[in-house]
Amino acid sequence: MHTVTKKELVDRIADQGGQKRVVVKKIVQSFLDEIIEELGHGNRLEFRDFGVFETKERGARIAQNPKTLQRVQVPPKRTVKFKVGRLMKQKLQEGMEAEKAQQPVPPQM
Amino acid sequence: MHTVTKKELVDRIADQGGQKRVVVKKIVQSFLDEIIEELGHGNRLEFRDFGVFETKERGARIAQNPKTLQRVQVPPKRTVKFKVGRLMKQKLQEGMEAEKAQQPVPPQM
Repeated sequence: MHTVTKKELVDRIADQGGQKRVVVKKIVQSFLDEIIEELGHGNRLEFRDFGVFETKERGARIAQNPKTLQRVQVPPKRTVKFKVGRLMKQKLQEGMEAEKAQQPVPPQM
Repeated sequence: MHTVTKKELVDRIADQGGQKRVVVKKIVQSFLDEIIEELGHGNRLEFRDFGVFETKERGARIAQNPKTLQRVQVPPKRTVKFKVGRLMKQKLQEGMEAEKAQQPVPPQM
């Protein structure tokens, strides 16, 4: 497994698309910043084939420490859920099957 | 809550950055396509401040229908987990607090 960074993708897109690296970098960064901004406002983002980002909130609650029996106020928390889109789902499936095909067949149960 | 599309973000980035719409659209699409491609190969993507995309696999398993007691082979499945980055986490928190500040205070327990 390899970890891909923003820089790596920017370089690749610039090379393939014949665009200046600085232009690609700025647009990719703006795109990511806009997504952060929209999620910060509690909005949902839907990119066809890619997937959906949406916020999910867990309300404030009272938790109890089971040892000390002390009650603590846990503040509300908002997080992001990503739902895989149609094309991504298909590519994940294909990638997995291609890997399995290269592995030896496991013993049958 | 509002659903934001790719087109909406592309238009906004083009307007703000003074780039041609067609250029922004192509770069944003290439960026999303590259992410899909990398995840399809089982790679992990880390975008500072934004977050991390990584694949997660659930192995093949035998499930049983509780009514008919029939056993079924469930194929392995690969999906994507998104982990919120530092800046996004901060913006989510700020957005939530700003909303709460506008709401009436709930009765105390």
